[in-house]
Amino acid sequence: MTPELIAAAYARLEPVVRRTPLLESPGLNALAGRRVLVKAECLQHTGSFKFRGGWAAVTGLTDAQRARGVVAFSSGNHAQGVARAAAANGVTAVIIMPQDAPNAKIANTRALGAEVILYDRSSGADTREIIGAELVQSRGLTLIPPYDDPVVIAGQASTGIELAEQAHEAGVGAADVLVCCGGGGLSSGIALALEERAPALRVRPCEPEGFDDMTRSLALGRPVANAALSGSICDAILTNAPGKLTWPILQRLAGPGLVVSDAECLGAMRAAFEHLRIVVEPGGAAALAAALAGGEGLPGDGPVIVVATGGNVDPAVFVRTLAG
Amino acid sequence: MTPELIAAAYARLEPVVRRTPLLESPGLNALAGRRVLVKAECLQHTGSFKFRGGWAAVTGLTDAQRARGVVAFSSGNHAQGVARAAAANGVTAVIIMPQDAPNAKIANTRALGAEVILYDRSSGADTREIIGAELVQSRGLTLIPPYDDPVVIAGQASTGIELAEQAHEAGVGAADVLVCCGGGGLSSGIALALEERAPALRVRPCEPEGFDDMTRSLALGRPVANAALSGSICDAILTNAPGKLTWPILQRLAGPGLVVSDAECLGAMRAAFEHLRIVVEPGGAAALAAALAGGEGLPGDGPVIVVATGGNVDPAVFVRTLAG
Repeated sequence: MTPELIAAAYARLEPVVRRTPLLESPGLNALAGRRVLVKAECLQHTGSFKFRGGWAAVTGLTDAQRARGVVAFSSGNHAQGVARAAAANGVTAVIIMPQDAPNAKIANTRALGAEVILYDRSSGADTREIIGAELVQSRGLTLIPPYDDPVVIAGQASTGIELAEQAHEAGVGAADVLVCCGGGGLSSGIALALEERAPALRVRPCEPEGFDDMTRSLALGRPVANAALSGSICDAILTNAPGKLTWPILQRLAGPGLVVSDAECLGAMRAAFEHLRIVVEPGGAAALAAALAGGEGLPGDGPVIVVATGGNVDPAVFVRTLAG
Repeated sequence: MTPELIAAAYARLEPVVRRTPLLESPGLNALAGRRVLVKAECLQHTGSFKFRGGWAAVTGLTDAQRARGVVAFSSGNHAQGVARAAAANGVTAVIIMPQDAPNAKIANTRALGAEVILYDRSSGADTREIIGAELVQSRGLTLIPPYDDPVVIAGQASTGIELAEQAHEAGVGAADVLVCCGGGGLSSGIALALEERAPALRVRPCEPEGFDDMTRSLALGRPVANAALSGSICDAILTNAPGKLTWPILQRLAGPGLVVSDAECLGAMRAAFEHLRIVVEPGGAAALAAALAGGEGLPGDGPVIVVATGGNVDPAVFVRTLAG
């Protein structure tokens, strides 16, 4: 990972990426007891930051790779990001998704023109990797990993480039940047961009209870895995363990992780609806949930920046949120 | 109304207004059978474009007027826009709201520090004007009308200034600009801004069935009123008749109006949720509803621009929308 790789990815992204707004509201600030500035990546193309990494990866292929196509495994947001980037660049995409992924994500991925292959998430941690490897072998597809890839991380880093500028515009000098964290691709990309452009902004990964591998890894100083593979509503960020590339970046640059309950994520979705008028999915609300929970992990009343990472949510889940 | 008045209002707004994004999605385009670019004013401060006119009006007061305070009547969005602008400028605000306004709008207006006076909307078309006039008389407050005021219209025109630039960036040359229309403040402001900056973009007011006074007035060539004062879910845009200032502007510059049903507005709210991840209120969805309905009022398959004017909606209404 080098600043040049990040700058090159940003140059490919800048003409097409949506510079998502950094939103703030008096009502939300009152709820949190501090300024909370929310980077609304749910407004990104395909509804999540994953468009950034997908676009960086697809546009970084050789001509020969483009001609053969790409394959990705994803619970849904990376799927859509890669599918959209592939379609826009005339590249065939095969997406391997868990069969319990939200219907909206599966349908959206197919609507973007991708071939979708479903697998059973409970059948073992490596199932999707095995299916992906077979497709790489048999069809000559190039695998675009969801997070543990230099070009994908460089693409996600564009979020941090925008954040450095937007935080400055909003008058925020030093602050924690709370980022919903699965494998750590977005967190590590933002951390690298901020290291260079706004070193007083510090990334803190936010995870659901039971899937706090990054938080525990940071506390222990060595990477550890989760016991479970499913069991939280935060489907977008249920990864097994820190990535081989993302872990050393976050070990070096991130502050302590923050852990939130599913109920806190639902409350954050509701707050985003009422105060910011944006639709955030459960896993995309983890960082806002951490900001609203406050507590000893987030002392003081200084401003915090939150990345609302995605907004692809089944209407039924959202109805439960608003009714709750 | 002069270009200088609009430019002066924009100069006061530019440092504080949110430049709301112009959103587009393949899924929404497929649904409409054409490109639909949505200006998401639901993401504006206070959740609607009314912040623009409120800020322009409050910052345009004399020092003596500021010291005495302001009064406004509104079903909720103008209330919040004026309340927020007044609070930020240290000005007292009294807001006269119909007692059947959405709870979220009444609560938000109070939370912004305004004094709220409720009245019965069915008691006659002039009730709120009479209450307002009494407060102007007794307390020396300055009335900030919801739409029929040169400075308020000039403030709303800032939406058109942004749209002219954003449409160009999106590669849209000539197009209809569908705007949710109550009294016509936003429609006429945008029309004036576009006349000067992007004359190939034409405003078309969009109204709910039964409250299509502007549409019928444009068709007849003279201003006519609505029969009813309430009875649509589109609470934000249920005005009695075209404004004295807004009517001649729209008669000169607007294309034919478009009329949508409440059910079409609910469908548009759902589409905005699913495809754009934004929360739009019923009255704020009228223009998107017209774009999705298409039909003989909107022939061809050329691009259209839609202004989603507000997003202040009770969760219960939204749950009904998603469930429907």
